[in-house]
Amino acid sequence: MPDTKYKFGMIGLGTMGRNLLLNMADHDFAGAGYDKNADQIALLEKEGDGTPVKGFTELHEFVQSLQTPRAIMMLVPAGKIVDSVIEELIPLLEKGDIVIDGGNSHFTDTNVRVDYLESKGLHFFGMGISGGEEGARKGPSMMPGGDKEAYNFVKPVLEAIAAKVDGQPCVTYIGPGASGHFVKMVHNGIEYAIMQLISETYGILKNGLGFDNDKIESVFSGWSKGKLQSFLMEITSDILKFKKPGSDHLLIDDIKDEARAKGTGKWTSQIAMDLETPIPSVDAAVSTRDLSKYKALRVELSELYADVQSKIKTENQDEFVKQLEDALYFSMITAYTQGMHLLFKASIAYNYKLNLGSIAQIWRGGCIIRSAFLEDIFQAYHKDDDLELLYTDANVQQKIKETLPAIRQVLASATVAGLALPAHAASLNYFDNFRTANMPSNLIQAQRDYFGAHTYELIGKEGVFHTVWTDVDKDKKEKP
Amino acid sequence: MPDTKYKFGMIGLGTMGRNLLLNMADHDFAGAGYDKNADQIALLEKEGDGTPVKGFTELHEFVQSLQTPRAIMMLVPAGKIVDSVIEELIPLLEKGDIVIDGGNSHFTDTNVRVDYLESKGLHFFGMGISGGEEGARKGPSMMPGGDKEAYNFVKPVLEAIAAKVDGQPCVTYIGPGASGHFVKMVHNGIEYAIMQLISETYGILKNGLGFDNDKIESVFSGWSKGKLQSFLMEITSDILKFKKPGSDHLLIDDIKDEARAKGTGKWTSQIAMDLETPIPSVDAAVSTRDLSKYKALRVELSELYADVQSKIKTENQDEFVKQLEDALYFSMITAYTQGMHLLFKASIAYNYKLNLGSIAQIWRGGCIIRSAFLEDIFQAYHKDDDLELLYTDANVQQKIKETLPAIRQVLASATVAGLALPAHAASLNYFDNFRTANMPSNLIQAQRDYFGAHTYELIGKEGVFHTVWTDVDKDKKEKP
Repeated sequence: MPDTKYKFGMIGLGTMGRNLLLNMADHDFAGAGYDKNADQIALLEKEGDGTPVKGFTELHEFVQSLQTPRAIMMLVPAGKIVDSVIEELIPLLEKGDIVIDGGNSHFTDTNVRVDYLESKGLHFFGMGISGGEEGARKGPSMMPGGDKEAYNFVKPVLEAIAAKVDGQPCVTYIGPGASGHFVKMVHNGIEYAIMQLISETYGILKNGLGFDNDKIESVFSGWSKGKLQSFLMEITSDILKFKKPGSDHLLIDDIKDEARAKGTGKWTSQIAMDLETPIPSVDAAVSTRDLSKYKALRVELSELYADVQSKIKTENQDEFVKQLEDALYFSMITAYTQGMHLLFKASIAYNYKLNLGSIAQIWRGGCIIRSAFLEDIFQAYHKDDDLELLYTDANVQQKIKETLPAIRQVLASATVAGLALPAHAASLNYFDNFRTANMPSNLIQAQRDYFGAHTYELIGKEGVFHTVWTDVDKDKKEKP
Repeated sequence: MPDTKYKFGMIGLGTMGRNLLLNMADHDFAGAGYDKNADQIALLEKEGDGTPVKGFTELHEFVQSLQTPRAIMMLVPAGKIVDSVIEELIPLLEKGDIVIDGGNSHFTDTNVRVDYLESKGLHFFGMGISGGEEGARKGPSMMPGGDKEAYNFVKPVLEAIAAKVDGQPCVTYIGPGASGHFVKMVHNGIEYAIMQLISETYGILKNGLGFDNDKIESVFSGWSKGKLQSFLMEITSDILKFKKPGSDHLLIDDIKDEARAKGTGKWTSQIAMDLETPIPSVDAAVSTRDLSKYKALRVELSELYADVQSKIKTENQDEFVKQLEDALYFSMITAYTQGMHLLFKASIAYNYKLNLGSIAQIWRGGCIIRSAFLEDIFQAYHKDDDLELLYTDANVQQKIKETLPAIRQVLASATVAGLALPAHAASLNYFDNFRTANMPSNLIQAQRDYFGAHTYELIGKEGVFHTVWTDVDKDKKEKP
């Protein structure tokens, strides 16, 4: 009966939705897709020719074509569109049907939707998906959270289509509520930081050392085979090889230097501030993307301050490139450290009961931040379930100690030369503050108490205290 | 008739509310105060003995004691308490009465309240007040925004009690809606950044150079008389002189190094991200306060990484201290630059039509961030209404150029030594990116397009473009 033969439904047949359906079909799960745009349907049926996929431009026909209880994933832009699709769907569904939001929704929106759909007798879960186009087609990393019963129902499909590492699928139940979308958001925050770190490194090679594109590409290709091995490093090499059709000119050189963003990095920074968890490398990535958009001001300032030079002085260029590799490794470790710490804190704050080892495990394949170092993270949490900060793991410690001299040297050289390395600097400063038993922040507490009577705490003494700081010198009290 | 003799009412008789009432009384404006806590009433009447102030513990009696139309200011903790006070007040008020929220409410809450009270026939405006205890008593800086008619009614009182600079009161109508609270929030964001910068400088003097307290105090006292002259520098000197009663031991040395916060700095960073305006020095101040609270982890890490030294190697200590002064000045200028830029952007986004020159003018006195440099800011915006970034002002440019070598040297030395200077580093990196005509962010755009088909823009060509980056090498397409 052709009306009810499809196992899985997909709403939104953009690249991600289409590729996920094709991926399911590869694993013999018949999938139906819905999109208002007939071109997307045509593309799906062309790419899926000979496989069990079918597209619909009418929502009710799409819904009717699915086996019950229905499993329907939405892959539409985050925000109001998600809600309007849900409203269109509700009258067409039956109790027990499952709706999955596979997009990058803000986790607070997901919380609201979980409750709303439950009130309608429907199952709902939010699932982060990482891997981009290629991941969706060949195996993404997926972070489902919320309704566990519903997850278990679709688990065979998700495990089949997920990336595999050591035979394990890169999908696991993350936790209750909006935890799936939360974890995906933090994944993207780490991604922002690492992309910024790579971009800064590219800037040093290009502007600080004056390397040409071939030389830069060969540096990145070399690094990609070593400890920096990762998806983002590999695509950087590819990008640095890509010539404009019929030309010897690299496409990258023609791309505008104004970086756009869709919001997940920003959300990560904003929520981390609410959770009082420092993730300054992500913050720096977010603010640097924002800064990049002020092109006209930057051009104006580059003329006003043209006398500041930007070439790095180094006696041994090969040695400096080696230090750059270590510096990037140090800062990448730090970006992961911050992201994992945020998950640790969020797990407590929202009662997600996250298993950080499992999260590292499913990030090892399929997702954008997959890297050789994720194996180290996985091992660290595998050894110690309660690990709060990666820096305390013995293996990580050793890697940090080995790369510290390099990050110090690179940053000092760039600082003197006038090359901006905001995310590298944020990473090293984060480390240096975290290894400081006594920070100078006691002064901030004294200042707050001085001008605002906000009180302070004393070492080795319970309670809060307030001082009239001007009492030391009565004359001061009359100061305007 | 004693029932209706009071010109101004104050709800919440904590230090700020009490001091503002006493300040009004000094200027012959009779004030009534309301607080549930009889101790606060007693304190008000004791400190205001012989002046026209009176306290009430019953809200209806307090309301009845005021001349109509009534002018009532709330100085209560931000959040739900503001709303519950408003609800208690509404049935007691008459059409045309004025309610002023003088606390640190989030500006989005103020927006909601403006509309709500208007629907009740009441005037409402939000007003930021800076100056702490002493400012409230002797002359604060005030940032009223919203209902202009209501502001004009209380203007004589506010102008009388405000701080004065060159004979001008440090209060001016800021703009519509919640602009008063918005501007006060950004004021606090700048305050966070400057406090962090001072704290880092104190840390270098103490830990990097090994100065004793006397020597540190003398450095700060000296700087306070120069270009760094400011309220926050002056109170730092006072703090560094304050000995525990009957002891030679400085109180600051016993204060815990875990910095607390009430949220305004965090809000500034979060909103700046929404407005896509980089303020990384404020971000660094927020995340560093957060980091300081992880005391146990810091102590643990200080042992694990004990082999990293933190002493600054310098051949000429006096010269280095001079460089520190310049570095702090550079970064303070940068903190103000970021804050003013955020106001510039918010003014457009929220249609506040802010006059940045007037805002700088009223910040010159009374408020926590008052400083000699605020005169430079005032002059810059006085010369050019449309100035977006302070860095382009000729006078500021000169100061930046004069101090650049110092900030580079200080940061490079601290980086090598292992001393954290997150806000200084964020400041210099912000500057160095802003003076970069071509940032390496083109790589980020290429990466985003590579893995997510997010498209990119080309130099000198309209439109957005997408590339299948792996097409250069067909083999790559089969990569998992």
